[in-house]
Formats: sequence, structure tokens, C-alpha cells
Amino acid sequence: MVHKMSQDHLSTTFAALADPTRRAILARLALGETSVTELAEPFAMSLPAISKHLKVLERAGLIARGREAQWRPCRIKAGALKDVDTWLENYRRFWDESFDRLDAYLQKLQGKEKRHARKQRKH
Amino acid sequence: MVHKMSQDHLSTTFAALADPTRRAILARLALGETSVTELAEPFAMSLPAISKHLKVLERAGLIARGREAQWRPCRIKAGALKDVDTWLENYRRFWDESFDRLDAYLQKLQGKEKRHARKQRKH
Repeated sequence: MVHKMSQDHLSTTFAALADPTRRAILARLALGETSVTELAEPFAMSLPAISKHLKVLERAGLIARGREAQWRPCRIKAGALKDVDTWLENYRRFWDESFDRLDAYLQKLQGKEKRHARKQRKH
Repeated sequence: MVHKMSQDHLSTTFAALADPTRRAILARLALGETSVTELAEPFAMSLPAISKHLKVLERAGLIARGREAQWRPCRIKAGALKDVDTWLENYRRFWDESFDRLDAYLQKLQGKEKRHARKQRKH
């Protein structure tokens, strides 16, 4: 059940990301939180159109909005994107050889550290 | 123009991923290439329904299909998912502190190696 819920959540996130304007909004918010008016400026879009996109992003947990009545700043939320990253993890080996090499290197380092710690305990 | 095209491509990819059945198909294909019939088995879905999902995945560049008339094996393609990973790169700093630490650590290591190389050249 939890698995199914998290799958639906991923679907909502991917659907929200499947739009260039919404990705552009996220890119803008990555620079810092901002008001809806400010956010709308570079898009040549009506405020209601931008608000609709923001609602989709908010429902997907990609952004959060402040509760101040006058100025409701939008900011990026990391959680949903982190879930996408976790999902991608299983596929990374299909393209990222350097990732494998780094992983092997870190395991080797960890091994060395463990041996070193064991040696120090003996002294 | 190239930028816009690649944005549309990302939208197509994200839209294709916004479905639990299509993500389950990818997860199966991550284990190895397989025929459509074999792929359909665990889904309790008709072959035409599965074929429709496969077409969406294929159009998004997420899978490729063999050209053999009888047995058209499906296999995963890394390119489109790699593009998602590249897109995510800009947002990773919002959740991955350990990534920052690793990055700092690797830069330190590189620095050490460079100094070491310079020393060796002097000898």
C-alpha cells in the first residue's frame, strides 16, 4: 500500500515536471524564493496561468508557498526531486561508468580506514 | 532552438515516466532485454495495452525494440534517463549535503595529487 502510494506520488511529480514552463519556474526558484508577480515577469504569461502552474508544482510537493496574505513567496522543496533521484539510482549504472569507478574507489578507501582503525585499536 | 528541442524532449521523457506501469516495465527491462509477451506476463494486461505503453516509452527514447519480425526484444536505453539525471544535477545541492562533502573531499584529494605531481617533477 505504501509502495503504491509512493508510486502515485512519483507519477504526480513526473507529470508536474513534464512541462517546460514549470521546469523554468523551478529553475528560477532554485536561485531563491520569490513572489508570484516577480516569478511571472519573464514568462509573458497572465498571473492566473502562472498560478495554475504553481498549483501543479505545489500539489506535486515541488514547491511550497508562504502563508502571508499579501506576499506569498514561493520556494523550492527538495523532497519530491530527491525521490526522483532515488528512483534514478537503479538506472544510473546504465550510463555512469565513472560512478561505478568512484563507488569502487570509496569502498577501497573505507576498507583502508577500517583496517587502519583495527590496527590502532591493537596498539 | 536546440535548447527548446531538448526541453520538449525532457517533457516527453517526464510524461512517459509519469505512469506506474511504464516505470514497472523499465524496472523489468533493467534486469535484461525481453520479448513483449514475456514483459506482459506479470502485468495482467492485454498485449495491446502493453504495446501502447511500450510505444510511449519508445517515443521518449527510454527503450529500443529489435527489428526481428517474430521476436522484437525490448531493451532499456540510457540516454533519456541520463538527460533527466543531468537536469536534476542543478537541484541536487538542495538535499544532498553528503554530495557536497564528497565533492569537497575529492577536490582536496585532487589538490594533494597535483601538489604531489609538482613535487615529483622537481626531484
